[in-house]
Amino acid sequence: MQRVVMSMMAEWCKPAESVRGVLLDISGVLYDSGQGGGIPIAGSTEAVRRIKEADLKVRFCTNETQATRETFVAKLQNLGFDITFGEVFAPAPAACQILKERGLRPHLLVHDGLLPEFNHIDQSNPNCVVIGDAADNFSYKNLNEAFQVLIGLEKPVLLSLGRGRYYKETDGMKLDVGAYMKALEYACDIEAEVIGKPAKMFFLSALSDMSLEPDQVIMIGDDIVNDVGGAQQCGMKAVQVRTGKYRKNCRCCKPGTKTEVAGKAQQVWQHL
Amino acid sequence: MQRVVMSMMAEWCKPAESVRGVLLDISGVLYDSGQGGGIPIAGSTEAVRRIKEADLKVRFCTNETQATRETFVAKLQNLGFDITFGEVFAPAPAACQILKERGLRPHLLVHDGLLPEFNHIDQSNPNCVVIGDAADNFSYKNLNEAFQVLIGLEKPVLLSLGRGRYYKETDGMKLDVGAYMKALEYACDIEAEVIGKPAKMFFLSALSDMSLEPDQVIMIGDDIVNDVGGAQQCGMKAVQVRTGKYRKNCRCCKPGTKTEVAGKAQQVWQHL
Repeated sequence: MQRVVMSMMAEWCKPAESVRGVLLDISGVLYDSGQGGGIPIAGSTEAVRRIKEADLKVRFCTNETQATRETFVAKLQNLGFDITFGEVFAPAPAACQILKERGLRPHLLVHDGLLPEFNHIDQSNPNCVVIGDAADNFSYKNLNEAFQVLIGLEKPVLLSLGRGRYYKETDGMKLDVGAYMKALEYACDIEAEVIGKPAKMFFLSALSDMSLEPDQVIMIGDDIVNDVGGAQQCGMKAVQVRTGKYRKNCRCCKPGTKTEVAGKAQQVWQHL
Repeated sequence: MQRVVMSMMAEWCKPAESVRGVLLDISGVLYDSGQGGGIPIAGSTEAVRRIKEADLKVRFCTNETQATRETFVAKLQNLGFDITFGEVFAPAPAACQILKERGLRPHLLVHDGLLPEFNHIDQSNPNCVVIGDAADNFSYKNLNEAFQVLIGLEKPVLLSLGRGRYYKETDGMKLDVGAYMKALEYACDIEAEVIGKPAKMFFLSALSDMSLEPDQVIMIGDDIVNDVGGAQQCGMKAVQVRTGKYRKNCRCCKPGTKTEVAGKAQQVWQHL
């Protein structure tokens, strides 16, 4: 199997022999989220299994912020994926570490499912705002409350769990946290600090956990900016799959417009 | 009275004698909007009356998009203002004209109170999105629907009724349409067309209605970008009042940061 992967990667990832690990995005790559837990993308459960059998190290690099890692991993296991808690890198735990290090007390505008990740964090008298993919919690009232916290601070601090524009669910494209990050940035005339992809630190922590160098690892994702661009900035090769949010005529997704696409894989899973 | 105004304006608006008209912003200048219809700002009803008595022409240039002009003017009359329908310039009527001229059929994301302005506009099979200050209608579901219309168009057209960051209501600062315009711009990688302040056309139509030249008219508003900056771009002088959204330490409101402030009036109404 490893030879198959190597052969596939050979053209755009020389020296192919040096590849020892794979970073996988989840939503839009392994499955499409949506009501009832979502649907695996054809061939993806098998692909993860075969990558692992080929003795490639695997970490899952997701900007998922609608659930705790525990819940998210359990859902993916139920969908048939060979995935464990320790293999998943997500923005919320990274955010908690930053909040503690800097003495920040967040006002949270996140999905109800993510709240337990912040249970151990002091949220009294907030001196920053943390936003995630809050979905239906992005009401006018809630966004306005976050705005009022920020505008009341002498130096507003906005931490955004990712900066995605949108993602694909089973019933269509959905606005992601990045759109709301931009709304608050504009309203308050500030710049958010992004935690998660495409932040360099986020990729590096996954690489460090694998004990691999950037040129030994391939990133596979459906987002040309957050997956492919982010990985490339760290010196990794990256593939954009054409599932998930990929759209043929999208100005963001079109190769060459925003960032260089390393691979041309039509759909990696079908070939693995 | 005219002499008092002229004397006030003399320092920063020479030759003062040439001033023949005043453009007035409404929200944050004449009154603070909010529950129960809002509250007039002290001295403002009297000031409008005295400006009119001084034979200065007056037009009200507002980015108000929570109600039709009829409803809005009736509310202000009830609050004691000498104001008529024909004196009010608002973005929705200007938008309707543009929609007709360009054969655009809007998907509307606006306040329920504004919908009647678009009754005569074909809204079938939308080929653009119009957003206004939709307030509580800015739910995730509604913003997502607008996004899906835009992302489904080959050339997405987004018309935004103003681009304000926020405004002041009686119970605090509220996010304005500009924040949501930015969210959709970012999600779709497009640039909105702004109708209303600070668009040049909007100011020029009010000037044309008064049959006055830019150097004969003063703009008075609380928004340094949309009122003051917009008017200055048309060659008018402008005053930023320190009511409404004005905040002493705001990076947007601070004189000199974004655009030059013409006047230093602490609070124009108290001096008129």
